[in-house]
Amino acid sequence: MTTPTTPRLAIHYCTGCRWLMRAAWTAQELLTTFEAELGEVALIPGSGGIFQVWADDTLLWDRKRDGGFPELRELKQRVRDAVAPDKALGHSDRPAS
Amino acid sequence: MTTPTTPRLAIHYCTGCRWLMRAAWTAQELLTTFEAELGEVALIPGSGGIFQVWADDTLLWDRKRDGGFPELRELKQRVRDAVAPDKALGHSDRPAS
Repeated sequence: MTTPTTPRLAIHYCTGCRWLMRAAWTAQELLTTFEAELGEVALIPGSGGIFQVWADDTLLWDRKRDGGFPELRELKQRVRDAVAPDKALGHSDRPAS
Repeated sequence: MTTPTTPRLAIHYCTGCRWLMRAAWTAQELLTTFEAELGEVALIPGSGGIFQVWADDTLLWDRKRDGGFPELRELKQRVRDAVAPDKALGHSDRPAS
């Protein structure tokens, strides 16, 4: 059980910024949408304003690189592209209107 | 980032039983109490009525073995004993009254 299951998402968040709830909410959204496709989602406490989402070795989102927090629509598209490229996302696949 | 950080807690929950929210709530409780002591908490979708909490290689809680879901007080004591034996838990250290 200590061995991580893949695909592994990891959400690295800043505890000093009080982003645990945001990270946990993001994890729940992704585990709901990708219930059958994900091995696990790990929540990783960090510092210094970090908010990153990784899919295995791929950095899908970085608050500093990407200029803020992800919209769930955009994040789900990136997760889908990384772990389940053939999966349709329904309304999350359409451009924001 | 794909390498898990230790101490690693893992919560293995049954998706068919709709225990994601319970697992995520448990994760948030543990990450709040053990903010500085945990490397990560992983949420792992499973089936068959599973609800287990692992600390690295140690099975801290098993719904089938332990006869139900953990009280947070009891679970926090087991996590503390596994990852931070010198940590005081305040009101969670006292017997339930």
